[in-house]
Amino acid sequence: MNVQLLLTGNELMRGDTVDSNSAMIAQHFGRLGIDVSRKVTVGDDLELLVSQLRELATTADILVVNGGLGPTIDDLTAEAAARLTDTALVEHPEAVDHLRRWCAARSFPLNPSNLKQSLLPEGASIIPNPRGSAVGFKVRFAECDIYCTPGVPVELRGMLEQTLIPDVSQRLDPDQIRLIQRFHTYGIGESSLQQWIVDEIPDRPPQVELGFRAGAPTLEVKLQSPACAATEHHRFVGRLGSLLKDYIVAESDGSLARTVVDTLKGRGLKMTTAESCTGGLIASMLTGQAGASAVFEAGFVTYANNMKEEMLGVSPEALISRGAVSETVVRQMALGALSRSGADCAVAVSGIAGPDGGTEEKPVGTVWLAWGSAADMRSVCLYFPYGRRMFQTMVAGAALDLVRRFIAGIESTPRYFRDRRLKSPAS
Amino acid sequence: MNVQLLLTGNELMRGDTVDSNSAMIAQHFGRLGIDVSRKVTVGDDLELLVSQLRELATTADILVVNGGLGPTIDDLTAEAAARLTDTALVEHPEAVDHLRRWCAARSFPLNPSNLKQSLLPEGASIIPNPRGSAVGFKVRFAECDIYCTPGVPVELRGMLEQTLIPDVSQRLDPDQIRLIQRFHTYGIGESSLQQWIVDEIPDRPPQVELGFRAGAPTLEVKLQSPACAATEHHRFVGRLGSLLKDYIVAESDGSLARTVVDTLKGRGLKMTTAESCTGGLIASMLTGQAGASAVFEAGFVTYANNMKEEMLGVSPEALISRGAVSETVVRQMALGALSRSGADCAVAVSGIAGPDGGTEEKPVGTVWLAWGSAADMRSVCLYFPYGRRMFQTMVAGAALDLVRRFIAGIESTPRYFRDRRLKSPAS
Repeated sequence: MNVQLLLTGNELMRGDTVDSNSAMIAQHFGRLGIDVSRKVTVGDDLELLVSQLRELATTADILVVNGGLGPTIDDLTAEAAARLTDTALVEHPEAVDHLRRWCAARSFPLNPSNLKQSLLPEGASIIPNPRGSAVGFKVRFAECDIYCTPGVPVELRGMLEQTLIPDVSQRLDPDQIRLIQRFHTYGIGESSLQQWIVDEIPDRPPQVELGFRAGAPTLEVKLQSPACAATEHHRFVGRLGSLLKDYIVAESDGSLARTVVDTLKGRGLKMTTAESCTGGLIASMLTGQAGASAVFEAGFVTYANNMKEEMLGVSPEALISRGAVSETVVRQMALGALSRSGADCAVAVSGIAGPDGGTEEKPVGTVWLAWGSAADMRSVCLYFPYGRRMFQTMVAGAALDLVRRFIAGIESTPRYFRDRRLKSPAS
Repeated sequence: MNVQLLLTGNELMRGDTVDSNSAMIAQHFGRLGIDVSRKVTVGDDLELLVSQLRELATTADILVVNGGLGPTIDDLTAEAAARLTDTALVEHPEAVDHLRRWCAARSFPLNPSNLKQSLLPEGASIIPNPRGSAVGFKVRFAECDIYCTPGVPVELRGMLEQTLIPDVSQRLDPDQIRLIQRFHTYGIGESSLQQWIVDEIPDRPPQVELGFRAGAPTLEVKLQSPACAATEHHRFVGRLGSLLKDYIVAESDGSLARTVVDTLKGRGLKMTTAESCTGGLIASMLTGQAGASAVFEAGFVTYANNMKEEMLGVSPEALISRGAVSETVVRQMALGALSRSGADCAVAVSGIAGPDGGTEEKPVGTVWLAWGSAADMRSVCLYFPYGRRMFQTMVAGAALDLVRRFIAGIESTPRYFRDRRLKSPAS
């Protein structure tokens, strides 16, 4: 089955937006064993849109068009599809109903530019949009099904899951289905991880494809095999799972924060956070998860030294003699957060995010972390010499990973304690 | 000047990699006032590559090819370019020299797969690569200059800066340079904002292009004009700036959080945060900014009711009689945060992020905000009926925007107090 993509939007052409939608579309089709064979992106130009639609639709079985369904004048997809199929743009009652309900639920007035979104090519079938104002639609041209979808990622995802993928699946031979396993790992870089796998499992079956995708702060390892190689696939998944085991923080659509929340919940534990250099990022990663309130009651963002004293009971002597970025202070922060919140475990971080504040002994990128319970508090100094945002992201990742290991009872020392060590660690 | 892009790589087609290179290329050309008119992405397939090269090169003045220059068998760009231009692949001494030096500097052996990178179309001119092993090259076909560049972003950037952009600049007429103005706004949706602009400034000069880009939580308005229309451009920028004034939270590369930090700094003020439903997101947006420590000393993440009492001194009576999501509680949270942190102003939020916890009176999406100083504390109930993450993002945006308005002395009532009101607000 030949699947192609047409993306539209001036923002994509000008580099204002990095396109992540086509990756999402490709991943959804990839799970059905279908590669996208060509992807074309054009700006908001009606002539160009029509000519590209024609060109792609004549070589594809399925063409997914993304973007240009919004209410503004530069949203041209419906008009282009109408020109292509030589039909009129007409008001679709189903789309008007959707818009009315959508606006009513939000107490928004339904204005003329909203209503433009219900003008679709005559005969088009509607693709429902449970998450936004624009409906999608499907038209047929030259043996090709053309699915027109919105540029807002969450709306696109809804349409892929509810309509496009089920639609396409029905047309597939079951042997085409591809087996996919994703492991999200924390703590080993891409090239080291690849080398480790090659060294330890040199006999990877040729049908099992191995790929890596760097996220922040995690790294995804993806295994992909044709359905006919199910035995080899599952055996290799098992071997890789055993090799990476302590570094696997989640599978499939999971995440490190999700795993921490679920593990805490499963064990009936509560945690708290005491953050200096990450400034609330760890707390916000946790509370971004539905159900976080069952395991997280309070977090302390103590950016200034006097706030570390007042909010967490850190001793002024330790701050003066050891400095805010020190083992003593970060342990006192964690213990203070524990006693003030009544939580079972805590993580505390204090480091130098930069761009200012570094010294020779404690350069920008240095961070002390403490994690554990009142009876079993641990600490480490790590070094993430990146820009401010990446530093904060990597420190928050380490903090959540250390809590994950602690509550799951993983006692092995992670490799990043060695890899991320300052040569002469600040004490 | 017509510029087009051809990207190649199976990883791009499968969604394993999100393509950020084409945004980088577009941004570099955009600064010269040149739009990229079409972008095509294909997998590592020789026939398809040759046919796409031919098609794009016959309509473009400049074609940038990205990817496929590496040492492995699926790197096909040089071969495709040789086929297109009907030349042989020959070893380029300049490329061999580069590879030798590159490997020697790293004590790598120069192996046959490396050497493959010096096989380029006869007559191609070399594009130096200061940051990697693969050299780029330029060939000409059908009036089009074809620049072949590597997929590794840092190497691509080097070639753009050192060779492509200087090369292309020389061919440009200075009048082609485009004038660009960006306003980041908060509080008005895309369609309402467009309608407002059309209603209030109906006579937009045709040379001034108006575009919108939805960020979260801000919306960017971008004005773009040819250099020859400078007078019209600056006049329209002035008029639009006056119209949107209280809604403009930043310009150019700024952001809402950056503006809040800078405005606080400029006035010698400090702020604090008391967060329930946003769980640390507001604090982390502030502390994501370099220099935040001058204006932000502490933040309180009080997710549970008893933590609102203990950390912020919220009265148990208010929590029982009014509930955690209430005007009384959110004001007490803000005042508690002020007195405990010693900051000059505070923002507090308490709402229902969902998916659970909504009631008929206070549905998921309801939030109470309080902001201001001890002497001048304000509050409002807003309604953001979205998913959990989007709710948190929008609430954090409102919180920062309200602080921005407060410290800047903007006294007009924002439209979103009306648009975002629950029909029967919880009190």
